[in-house]
Amino acid sequence: MPSRPPLEPFPVSTPAATLVFTTVLTQGPLSRVEVGRRTGLSSAAITKAVRPLLDAGYLLEAADGAKGTGLGRPANPLQVDPGRAFFIGIKVTGDEVIGVLTDLTARIREARHIPFTSRAPAVVLEVITALTAELRTAAEEYGVPVQSLGVAVSGDVDREVGMVHYSPFLGWRDVPLAELVSGATELPTVVDNDVRALTVAEQWFGAGVGADTFALVTVGAGIGCGLVVGGRVVAGAHGVAGEIGHVPIDPAGPLCHCGNSGCVEAIAADPAIVRRIREVTGEPVTTAEEALALARSGHPGARQAYAGAGHAIGLGIAAVVNLLGPERVIISGEGLTAYDLFEEQIRTAFAAAAFGAAKECELLTRPLPFDEWARGAAATAIQTFIEPGKA
Amino acid sequence: MPSRPPLEPFPVSTPAATLVFTTVLTQGPLSRVEVGRRTGLSSAAITKAVRPLLDAGYLLEAADGAKGTGLGRPANPLQVDPGRAFFIGIKVTGDEVIGVLTDLTARIREARHIPFTSRAPAVVLEVITALTAELRTAAEEYGVPVQSLGVAVSGDVDREVGMVHYSPFLGWRDVPLAELVSGATELPTVVDNDVRALTVAEQWFGAGVGADTFALVTVGAGIGCGLVVGGRVVAGAHGVAGEIGHVPIDPAGPLCHCGNSGCVEAIAADPAIVRRIREVTGEPVTTAEEALALARSGHPGARQAYAGAGHAIGLGIAAVVNLLGPERVIISGEGLTAYDLFEEQIRTAFAAAAFGAAKECELLTRPLPFDEWARGAAATAIQTFIEPGKA
Ligand SMILES: [Zn+2]
Ligand SMILES: [Zn+2]
Repeated sequence: MPSRPPLEPFPVSTPAATLVFTTVLTQGPLSRVEVGRRTGLSSAAITKAVRPLLDAGYLLEAADGAKGTGLGRPANPLQVDPGRAFFIGIKVTGDEVIGVLTDLTARIREARHIPFTSRAPAVVLEVITALTAELRTAAEEYGVPVQSLGVAVSGDVDREVGMVHYSPFLGWRDVPLAELVSGATELPTVVDNDVRALTVAEQWFGAGVGADTFALVTVGAGIGCGLVVGGRVVAGAHGVAGEIGHVPIDPAGPLCHCGNSGCVEAIAADPAIVRRIREVTGEPVTTAEEALALARSGHPGARQAYAGAGHAIGLGIAAVVNLLGPERVIISGEGLTAYDLFEEQIRTAFAAAAFGAAKECELLTRPLPFDEWARGAAATAIQTFIEPGKA
Repeated sequence: MPSRPPLEPFPVSTPAATLVFTTVLTQGPLSRVEVGRRTGLSSAAITKAVRPLLDAGYLLEAADGAKGTGLGRPANPLQVDPGRAFFIGIKVTGDEVIGVLTDLTARIREARHIPFTSRAPAVVLEVITALTAELRTAAEEYGVPVQSLGVAVSGDVDREVGMVHYSPFLGWRDVPLAELVSGATELPTVVDNDVRALTVAEQWFGAGVGADTFALVTVGAGIGCGLVVGGRVVAGAHGVAGEIGHVPIDPAGPLCHCGNSGCVEAIAADPAIVRRIREVTGEPVTTAEEALALARSGHPGARQAYAGAGHAIGLGIAAVVNLLGPERVIISGEGLTAYDLFEEQIRTAFAAAAFGAAKECELLTRPLPFDEWARGAAATAIQTFIEPGKA
């Protein structure tokens, strides 16, 4: 929820107008007839919804004669003007703040990052503020106003009130981040969990477009999962959801930081792979990069650790698919740099453990440069700009 | 979807009217003010929605002076007239057809069952038809018309087209059951998977009322799970969902009929418990009743098998809760007769494997007499009567 009203209110006021705009934004360009088919709205309702959006420049109607039907009135597809409004997305990692400037379609126009030396909220806030100022200066060169800002943080985050309840990675508890950032930047600010933010980006602008139910699985330092069911991002009644990393798959498996044994994350996250390689090979491996280099050099013990990680991820995905029956699963995250070392095991374990027709669920991969996390944050800002009530 | 129009159309035509009626049906009696609060509708919209329902006798408005506010107009709570319409629910098991006659609030008024000797669809259809005729005769004594009929079958069932794609238990493939039953009984007929039907009954008339997201876990001959997320029953994009029975929890566990090892069902379903007790104790146990009797007699090997089943179910529930974060989990099914033998293990395994605040998810039990499965089928008929578009 933005802590302050947007600089310029978005000119939609009815659920029908929001539906029309998001349909064109995520699936356009579309003819008015096609918008009617996809939304179930009458042509009169679409005309009413579209007019203020055309007037304010958020929608364009290409008067392209070449696309006419030949039966008189041209098809005139509706499309969004990407440059009509800009947004800023911020991802806070353990040692730097990454920021992107995006257009209305979440395309990254500028990217910056600033490292920090202390994770204290006040220090991180200063860095976020500086980065935001840089990106606003960049936006001025395009002559496009920045409407609002999204911040993505790992951990237990309540988007509705803009509060980071607990971020183990940053060591934060109950930081009212949306209020702090909007106070410092004077921009309406949305704060969300990083995996959920990435899920919103996939739902609106990525491989989740048009899917009623899908899962995004992120691999890397942790194993995360964002879920969209019935078109809504699952948040969890108690603030916990998508914890594929802590689905128990092997009682004889290694101890997890959550206190259990054999969680997916205890086998397949980067630190687990590094630890396993150290144990098996005796090599003094301490980082994901070193682990990857050893496996790439062909060391069988190192390769085995990645294979085991793939197997665990495949079983975790099977649990998601057997329970929810999503249309597709998108696998992403910085761990994809090692994907050649475990893709086969993910697919084999998934296919074996998926129940019946659940095997038909499509597994896609999506490379994830670090900027993408910040883009996810921008997507939440775009979503809230368009649908202020939706948290 | 009913194969034929209802005998008497239900007098609601707008989404607002459907929302008002289902709110009063599932949460009533409620004052108009309270209906407004829960639905977000204006008092004018409620008046418009309520009038035809009062006129047709589906809603009653108690003109109870005692409940007046003392400020002039009495509170006049709205409530459904349960006896305004009756419905029939049918559950097909492996050896009999169970049928119930329910009122509009899914309260069972009459229950009957007829055994069959062949599982051939034509034979089962005859039995369903005979049972339906019996229940309609019973309804005549109440002087209340039967509006429609629901049938619940285990397996892969497509409610929208009324087709049983595959029911391993009955040995059926692609049986167009809704068409067959509505042809024979001349009643609009809904056919659904039995666990999903039970989930609808819980959502509308049971422990799921008011929960945005909940899970129903059934234990017994199989381990099933119905999921409601965002107010909608999850059906699965490929027809598979809620397969908690085939969540893999132990690679060293027993072989499952699905081909994998260590599925929840391979450890915790009745046949798995019976097999395990036979192996461990050497006793010639072949049925769930014998297994239960041996465990109740205090035989340690038999008790151990139930404890292992409880542990497996607890881990399966933890997987559901870690992924979806439901408000509550309802445990039900005929296996609850042995609940004293595994409740503690379910709760202990769940609490250990639930991640963080997911532990706060409430686990409820709900005894399930066999009639309840048929009541679930009646609930799907009631739902379709009220919301014909909702499959
Ligand atoms: Zn864990
Ligand atoms: Zn299985």
